[in-house]
Amino acid sequence: MKKFINAVDQVENQMIMGMCKAYPQYVKKLDCGNVVVRSNKKEGKVALISGGGSGHEPAHGGFVGEGMLDAAVAGAVFTSPTPDQVYEGIKAIATDAGVLMVIKNYTGDVMNFEMAGEMAEMEDIKVAKVVVNDDVAVDGSLYTVGRRGVAGTVFVHKIAGAKAETGASLEEVQATAQKVIDNVRTMGVAIRPCTVPAAGKPGFELGEDEMEVGIGIHGEPGTHKEPLRPVDEIVDHILDKILGDLDFSGSEVAVMVNSSGATPAMELFIVNNHVADVLAEKGIKVYKTFVGEFMTSLEMEGFSVTLLKLDDELKELLDAKADTIAFKA
Amino acid sequence: MKKFINAVDQVENQMIMGMCKAYPQYVKKLDCGNVVVRSNKKEGKVALISGGGSGHEPAHGGFVGEGMLDAAVAGAVFTSPTPDQVYEGIKAIATDAGVLMVIKNYTGDVMNFEMAGEMAEMEDIKVAKVVVNDDVAVDGSLYTVGRRGVAGTVFVHKIAGAKAETGASLEEVQATAQKVIDNVRTMGVAIRPCTVPAAGKPGFELGEDEMEVGIGIHGEPGTHKEPLRPVDEIVDHILDKILGDLDFSGSEVAVMVNSSGATPAMELFIVNNHVADVLAEKGIKVYKTFVGEFMTSLEMEGFSVTLLKLDDELKELLDAKADTIAFKA
Repeated sequence: MKKFINAVDQVENQMIMGMCKAYPQYVKKLDCGNVVVRSNKKEGKVALISGGGSGHEPAHGGFVGEGMLDAAVAGAVFTSPTPDQVYEGIKAIATDAGVLMVIKNYTGDVMNFEMAGEMAEMEDIKVAKVVVNDDVAVDGSLYTVGRRGVAGTVFVHKIAGAKAETGASLEEVQATAQKVIDNVRTMGVAIRPCTVPAAGKPGFELGEDEMEVGIGIHGEPGTHKEPLRPVDEIVDHILDKILGDLDFSGSEVAVMVNSSGATPAMELFIVNNHVADVLAEKGIKVYKTFVGEFMTSLEMEGFSVTLLKLDDELKELLDAKADTIAFKA
Repeated sequence: MKKFINAVDQVENQMIMGMCKAYPQYVKKLDCGNVVVRSNKKEGKVALISGGGSGHEPAHGGFVGEGMLDAAVAGAVFTSPTPDQVYEGIKAIATDAGVLMVIKNYTGDVMNFEMAGEMAEMEDIKVAKVVVNDDVAVDGSLYTVGRRGVAGTVFVHKIAGAKAETGASLEEVQATAQKVIDNVRTMGVAIRPCTVPAAGKPGFELGEDEMEVGIGIHGEPGTHKEPLRPVDEIVDHILDKILGDLDFSGSEVAVMVNSSGATPAMELFIVNNHVADVLAEKGIKVYKTFVGEFMTSLEMEGFSVTLLKLDDELKELLDAKADTIAFKA
């Protein structure tokens, strides 16, 4: 295993410290563990907390700041954060308006965030939650009942975060977050797996000409392997799955082409070249496109495409100001 | 060779088209070839052009926009753009205030930009140039007389671009760009090489426990190989070289921890954790830090550290507004 690290049991902590030392204007670390919160707490609005295992950077600490998250909780690599961690995060950011938990649909994440929410409610903190499940590739997995939450989660952070900044109530922010979830779909593929530091070996094996279709974001295998094809054909397959799952016809969409970590930006743009052409041909209007690293899986070489169906409210909130390490608008 | 592409001879063109389709609010492509310019030309200020081979994304198209570049020219992968390409770029962005060419120190780049500059001057366009040579690892290479220009170039784009927005003259913008060059130093290492699509095989080979020290950004080998060590020790070595090359004592610096393309953000933050500690210990004050992908080498797994010594002018220009695909301030 070749990695730029010091010790396997220090990767999460040294990452969070390195992030807070790089960007003190955005984030600070809680003393209790790997939880980052906004450097300047904002009162009088619903506070948003998200998180999950480490290894998805810039998610989730990279999205803490004005117009997005108020706290991000980082578990061990690809491992759910503990209820205590989430609870400390909630307590640190709680306002009178309440706290919305944005949870990706993994059994451990859902359980631990819910437990933390109950602990917070016992302290009279108002808590609500949404569960993101945008991955159209699989209906369930080793780690999930139902669909997995993947890159589409970033649109939930952005849009629900903007809604919260307007002074909306907890119920309203939750409803807007749920509207994003109802309208967002993602699918991904990979040509090189990643290695969890503590495991020391890749999460799956691939032959010289193979790709893994329907990957998640935790180094787990996808639905099946198939021969690597020209990327336009891969994009066609992904868009067929996404457009077959939700009716996007005649709508305006936000597009995200997300790197799994090691994919060169050159290839992401080549992906988007065809995504844009296919959508244009189908009469689906692209409102805004985001290409880059948003929800990664360490050094996995792969990509996902996310489509979010927009209405006027979602467009306005997508465009609203955001000022975080990894997402500025 | 596993890549998300369609055809080796289409990668540059499809990348540029994909970038322009993703971000029409920032960039548009010239009809003549792989040259991108600001979507909205800004008159009355010095225009900046940069570029080089493709494969360094988001450099250079990702830095075209308000407060940074006016044009970026993309040659074939790791290959200098032609004089004609650069000339078309200069013509498209030229204003009465003139054009500054920001060239990275590679023999082909310097020659072709200079030739383009001469062609433009014959059309009565005022042209000046700076040559960036921030890499402390080597004094020359297969591709270079003198030091190579690497990630520090992004600080030149940012700061000279901000200077141009103030309405400064061509000579003033050139002088500020040169001040950045005089005060910026970079060094990098890699643990996995990259494969140029047209070559089909990696630019160098590395054993299971080896790293390449002193890498450039064109897939070329560095100064030597050595066993992979804990990353704090690698950072110590890089900072020794940089701090031994220019006197940073008592100064304020901007730090850039740049991914070669495939390095997980987790590891970049672990790098920064130690960079910040070492600088603090040496009494060098960090003014601002940037961690991410700025000047890459396709899917190379490596990183570089850049230090820029700041004065009041450079701080103000570093903080000035920038609105591009890959750099916002």
